[in-house]
Amino acid sequence: MNNLNKATNISLEEAARFLLSKDDILILSHANPDGDTFGCSYGLCGALQKAGKNVKIACADPLPANFFHLREAIKEQDFEEKTVVSVDIADKSLLGKLENEYGDKVDLAIDHHLSHAPFANLRYVDDKAAACCEIVYDLIKLLGVGLDKATAQCIYTGIATDTGCFKFGNTTGLTHIKAGELMEYGFDCAALNYRLFDMKSRSRIRLEQFVLEHLDFFAEGKGAVVALQKQLLEGVDSEDINGISALPRMIEGVEVGIVLKEKEDGWKASMRSFKTDVQKICKKFGGGGHLNAAGCSFKDMAAEDIIGKIKAAVCEELGYTAK
Amino acid sequence: MNNLNKATNISLEEAARFLLSKDDILILSHANPDGDTFGCSYGLCGALQKAGKNVKIACADPLPANFFHLREAIKEQDFEEKTVVSVDIADKSLLGKLENEYGDKVDLAIDHHLSHAPFANLRYVDDKAAACCEIVYDLIKLLGVGLDKATAQCIYTGIATDTGCFKFGNTTGLTHIKAGELMEYGFDCAALNYRLFDMKSRSRIRLEQFVLEHLDFFAEGKGAVVALQKQLLEGVDSEDINGISALPRMIEGVEVGIVLKEKEDGWKASMRSFKTDVQKICKKFGGGGHLNAAGCSFKDMAAEDIIGKIKAAVCEELGYTAK
Repeated sequence: MNNLNKATNISLEEAARFLLSKDDILILSHANPDGDTFGCSYGLCGALQKAGKNVKIACADPLPANFFHLREAIKEQDFEEKTVVSVDIADKSLLGKLENEYGDKVDLAIDHHLSHAPFANLRYVDDKAAACCEIVYDLIKLLGVGLDKATAQCIYTGIATDTGCFKFGNTTGLTHIKAGELMEYGFDCAALNYRLFDMKSRSRIRLEQFVLEHLDFFAEGKGAVVALQKQLLEGVDSEDINGISALPRMIEGVEVGIVLKEKEDGWKASMRSFKTDVQKICKKFGGGGHLNAAGCSFKDMAAEDIIGKIKAAVCEELGYTAK
Repeated sequence: MNNLNKATNISLEEAARFLLSKDDILILSHANPDGDTFGCSYGLCGALQKAGKNVKIACADPLPANFFHLREAIKEQDFEEKTVVSVDIADKSLLGKLENEYGDKVDLAIDHHLSHAPFANLRYVDDKAAACCEIVYDLIKLLGVGLDKATAQCIYTGIATDTGCFKFGNTTGLTHIKAGELMEYGFDCAALNYRLFDMKSRSRIRLEQFVLEHLDFFAEGKGAVVALQKQLLEGVDSEDINGISALPRMIEGVEVGIVLKEKEDGWKASMRSFKTDVQKICKKFGGGGHLNAAGCSFKDMAAEDIIGKIKAAVCEELGYTAK
């Protein structure tokens, strides 16, 4: 490792040549993993194994059940890594509990975040890509090993999940064209989409019911907030809890939707919007995120006081006086 | 009109030449219209107007508010039609109250239903197309007038709505590739997708709450049924009522989901499944539809009796004994 070389931008062709010149490769996904980071790591792992490499995967958190299909793309291998690659990781702190071990040992970072904070020796970052899997798809093609049904399914999973199944504003014409090419590998796309997007567990249903019943509308219905107490979240999958954050904003007229979740040490707020800069609002409370999806945490405060503060901040941003 | 020529299959090139040789064209959409039939009619109308033709649209039912964007593609014209084209219509009875006037006067039918029952002089039917708009997209290209932002948005609307935003099993690689090409025309795809798929009206939310609270699970959770009384549906958009039919089947473990809606003259059941043949079940009660989406009606029966009969039929199909 050479700190002088940190953050060297390379082309995707150079990234492919780099990977083909190495062996005993470890691929890292970010903590609180999603379909994109795991789609990248399993897809790239499968392709590099096909190229004759020893490759394995690590993540601070386990693979959620709705992504078990990704495992079909790889075989489990055990060896001591000589090369470390990160996928879909914007900042080394996102390695979670793996940061201490690998934070300064990443040889190549492949990412699509505008906010990418260089930490690897070499990096390829394309913030125009809707999903990091779009980049990994092009990279696999450059490796010359070709895709198969299982790796195509990994890449599709990342693209579909990061775009809300092609619904969000990050979706481009190229995103669709890549998805179309991937579908030609013949995996059961409809069954996969059902698991990824439509299936609701009974506990998810119960949470949705609670949210819909207890939503507190403000700013003439442009704001909607709900607080989920700890006991309500006990035993509920993190996937189900995360998914619920988008629900208030789906209601007609709602511009900013906020879900408060009680944690061991306080409350976490997740904000979603269409045009309003919720990152700016969350920043006021020490949080951050993206323009339309951001979060912040509160300690030693009652939910009703937090809601009061959030309402006031959202109303100010929307040009209303809080009631 | 010449009955001897009824049901002549023509190529898409012939269909394009036919349209270019005609003028004063009326395009018909099916009753209980959806995004595909209206996407076809507005998109094709816009393209033919660009080719210098007089073109207008007719449908037994009005354009729902969530499809108002389609109007951007056309200019209103008034004239006496000399040529009649139907889009996405499998059977002339689906013209609804326009059947008497136009049922035997359709010159060209463009459709994608496997079950197409010939009624027009000329027809082009491709049951491999996920949406009839996939066909109309190819047809517009053959007209030689090119697409613009507004017509591209019409075609995208049909493709996206008929595939559940690229989630359903009818989606092919080609569907994605066409969507990718259409997005290049630069309409606001994310805002459109929100209106088409994610926005929930307050009345929709209330219906969803009722369904989730009153779902009756049977056959070890593989079946779920709910009855929606007339007073619950009063003043609710037909779009919202239709959308609710898919909800019970979204719950983990549910294989057959049934929603009963009370009508003026009895009850209508909508069944959705993954693998179970619900068309077969509905047929027992005089209804019909597709393998995974079917319906039937009941008169002079109480909801609880209907539910009993439906449960028994579903259990039999699933291999259970009704409880």
